[in-house]
Amino acid sequence: MTNKSQPAPQDDSARTALKDTVRPPAPQPGVQYLPWSQVELETLGPLIERQLIVGHEVMLARILLRKGCIVPLHSHANEQISYILEGALKFSIDGKEIVVRAGEVLTIPPNMPHKAEALEDTLDLDIFHPPRADWINKTDSYLRSESGPGQK
Amino acid sequence: MTNKSQPAPQDDSARTALKDTVRPPAPQPGVQYLPWSQVELETLGPLIERQLIVGHEVMLARILLRKGCIVPLHSHANEQISYILEGALKFSIDGKEIVVRAGEVLTIPPNMPHKAEALEDTLDLDIFHPPRADWINKTDSYLRSESGPGQK
Repeated sequence: MTNKSQPAPQDDSARTALKDTVRPPAPQPGVQYLPWSQVELETLGPLIERQLIVGHEVMLARILLRKGCIVPLHSHANEQISYILEGALKFSIDGKEIVVRAGEVLTIPPNMPHKAEALEDTLDLDIFHPPRADWINKTDSYLRSESGPGQK
Repeated sequence: MTNKSQPAPQDDSARTALKDTVRPPAPQPGVQYLPWSQVELETLGPLIERQLIVGHEVMLARILLRKGCIVPLHSHANEQISYILEGALKFSIDGKEIVVRAGEVLTIPPNMPHKAEALEDTLDLDIFHPPRADWINKTDSYLRSESGPGQK
């Protein structure tokens, strides 16, 4: 069987509009087999650790937020889906507070401001389209102590 | 807080090229809070059940494949990321066999043929960009018995 992977469809105009979130030029990955145990674990602060798997147009992040961790209000052009595997996150979004617990999912449209607080030690799976350039480039200062969710 | 969601970027030329996988026109969802326990469970055959959560440009599927279930060789223009939560799937892809176990991830580029066999009862999380029109429209005959993975 041959590798029939092709570059993902590109939309330059839309890409330009997403200037703050566009990925840097990068080779298009082929098949990637990645046990989470072999993916770099990045410590952003005392209450938050993160791993990333980056595809063509989708990024998967596995995030451990310890109880009391607060992700401050922010927004991004990337679509987000959050699936809580363990624990509970209280989101402030769209004028509401929504507690998302283990086995529950929240979909967040592009450009929708949101904040989150870990009510328990929480394992959160976040999916983004397109991949978050600020997370890949480590320019996500809002998430890093001291300005970020390192302390409650 | 106002809902600042905007339509996701569109790329009509790329969309046209994805004619077999394009979603039907649908309203762009806002914030969706969805416990998996409240998401429709679709039985495709005696060995496979599936749930879908559909966003703008990303779809999240939670799939239970019982031991012996075979998903026949197929490909699609949608990028795929598979995260095995429980069990093990043996993929045949890119000239190799790769067993992906609980806690492991496989990224599958667009148009890459692949086959999968459940070595154990398996809970698989599949992420697609764009959403799979054939799954949403239930035209995915390759996955349904009698032609599909209902029987080994």
